[in-house]
This record gives sequence, C-alpha cells and structure tokens, in this order.
Amino acid sequence: MRQFVIIGHDAPTTPEFSLDDIAGGAGRLDVLCRCVNSAFFLSHDIREDVRAHLVLADEFTVTFEGSDLHRLNPDERSTAALVRNALDEREEAIGHMPIETSPGVSLTRRGVEPVLDAVVSESTVVQLHEDGDPVVDIDPPEDPAFVLSDHRDFTDAEADLLADAADRRVRLGPERLHADHAITVAHNYLDTAGFERY
Amino acid sequence: MRQFVIIGHDAPTTPEFSLDDIAGGAGRLDVLCRCVNSAFFLSHDIREDVRAHLVLADEFTVTFEGSDLHRLNPDERSTAALVRNALDEREEAIGHMPIETSPGVSLTRRGVEPVLDAVVSESTVVQLHEDGDPVVDIDPPEDPAFVLSDHRDFTDAEADLLADAADRRVRLGPERLHADHAITVAHNYLDTAGFERY
Repeated sequence: MRQFVIIGHDAPTTPEFSLDDIAGGAGRLDVLCRCVNSAFFLSHDIREDVRAHLVLADEFTVTFEGSDLHRLNPDERSTAALVRNALDEREEAIGHMPIETSPGVSLTRRGVEPVLDAVVSESTVVQLHEDGDPVVDIDPPEDPAFVLSDHRDFTDAEADLLADAADRRVRLGPERLHADHAITVAHNYLDTAGFERY
Repeated sequence: MRQFVIIGHDAPTTPEFSLDDIAGGAGRLDVLCRCVNSAFFLSHDIREDVRAHLVLADEFTVTFEGSDLHRLNPDERSTAALVRNALDEREEAIGHMPIETSPGVSLTRRGVEPVLDAVVSESTVVQLHEDGDPVVDIDPPEDPAFVLSDHRDFTDAEADLLADAADRRVRLGPERLHADHAITVAHNYLDTAGFERY
C-alpha cells in the first residue's frame, strides 16, 4: 500500500467555512483537496491501494481509504465538502477511534505525531527533501509512506518528528514542487519502477 | 519553451456560468483549471518559460503566458474566473488576433486546428499515447509541445490532426493519467533530464 500524509498548517478544524472560499476562509484547504485528487485519481479509475491522511492544524485527521471510496470527485470543491462533512462529526471523535463520515472517509482526533506513529508501524517512511537522494537512484520500498507539507514549510517540531520517523530521504527532481504535484511524481516513479504492478 | 495544448470538449464558450459549479454547469472547466495549475506552479514560483492553451469546445482558445502572468492562483475557482473574464471579451475576438483579458491571459477565436498549426511551427509536438515510446528512453526535445485532452478521448478528427502534427509519440508510464497529472509528470521528466536548466 502507498500512503500519503499531508500536514495542513492552514486548515479548518470546524465545518464553519464556505465551499465558495476554500482557498481563503477555509485556510488553504484547496491545497489539501488537490493532494487527495493526486493521491487517488487515474483516468477513469481510482487507485484502490492508497491511503491518504489530511492532518488539519495538528488537531484532526481526515483519512481517505482508496478501497472504500465511493463519492470522490476530482474537483476541489466536492473534496472540500467531504472534509466539511467529516468535521461535522468532530464532537464524536474521541481519542484515536476513527468515525466513518462518508464511504472511505473517516475522522480521528489526531495530530501529526500519532498519525506518523501509526504510519511508521506500517510503512517505510519517505521524506521528500531537497537534499535527499535522487528518486531514480533508489529502489522503491514495498509499502512507502510519503510525508508532505501544504504550502508552508514543516515546523521545526514536525521536521524533528519526521527525521526520527523517516527511513529514506528522497528528492524528486531539481525543482521544488507543490505537494499535490509531488504526489503525482511519486506515483509515477512507483508505477514506472514497476512496484506492485510488474 | 514548453507548451501545452489542452483540448476541452466539455468546456464553456460563454461567460454565463457560476464559479460555484465549474465541474457541472461549466462543463468540466475544473479539469482545464487543474491543467493550468500543473503547467505553471512551482513551490512559491511560476514557470515563466511555459505557454498553455485551453481550447474551449473547438471555438475559442484561452492562452496563458508564463512570463506575463500576474494574477494566477493555484485554486480551480480563481483560474475559472480568469477564463470567465476572457470569455467576457468574446465579441471582440475576431479572426486569430489575441485579446489580452488579464495579465498574461489572452483570448482568440481559434479551435483545435489553428492552434495546432501555430504550435507545430514553433515546437516539437509530443503526443502522449499509451502505445508511445517510454518517456525515459527518448531525449527531450528543445521546444516541446504536449497535446492533451480533457476527461474525454480525442475525437477521430482530432486524433487525425494530431497524428499529422506530432513528431513523437511518448508514454509517461503504465497508468493512464488525468491530463493535469500528465503535465506534472512531463515537467518532472524535462526537469530531471536537465532540459533547459542543466
């Protein structure tokens, strides 16, 4: 399984935002929605063996499970609506127990650290870093988890957590990419390297 | 220069659509907006040496010029607003003369064929095709132009035009990708191959 953890620093933690203003009033939820798109969509298909976690302001996490997703559409607005639906149930989110808020979408009251802890136990954690090894030079791990940040840099505390969690540091290319573009390139690397498919 | 031509089959040709409904009432303008995002955005930067053409239902073309873009934001809605602004000027678009409708954004009354004709004269046209050569096996052309379709397949007429125009047929990987993801992968290929930068 391929996992993606996207740390949203400027993300909503309540459902009181307008779907007309997801790049403003909802922080930068648009960035996170594009990451979900990149994580799951193929042409006329969904990548079922993918799980993506949107960490919202270190307080809640909305997890998308490829094998169970039914109502995911590619546009930002409809994905933002799924996140808003999830946050509607936030009073029910106690401890780390997930609540399924729509098919394949669940909410937990977890910040960055417990999400990374869970991912570490299941995956080879890959940190995308401008000083990392070129992606083409390394063999793809069997169950990779990529950890990315939204439009902001990782905080020092997150960078420390990630340095502890990461098994590999990898660079995707000479340019610094948006998180959603990095997910697309990571998928292509894994697809092309033949991991899981050839 | 890198160019991208995205053929929108299900795209608006008048500005009478709501920005709240760009994946419905405006056809699938959301797809085209994501292609613009992928064509231009780097982390905290714009790719200046890129031109992207959105062909709207074979009737109008909105062209984004990286070196002149000032008001481009990454979210779908604000890009859709630039397209709507361009279509507001459609009565002024006569022949193939471009009208600049916002900084770096221009409208022409051109369908697929004249846009391909213009691109052929300036570029090496690359057709993305599932039977093409693996992208890693070919040397990147100096001024590549990638021609893509929105969520629909090329029509037979478009496929014929493209077969005539294309200098290369290339495959990006084993999976069929959304057009915006294909643009991201194409950029990464060109970045990594060192074209224009190293």
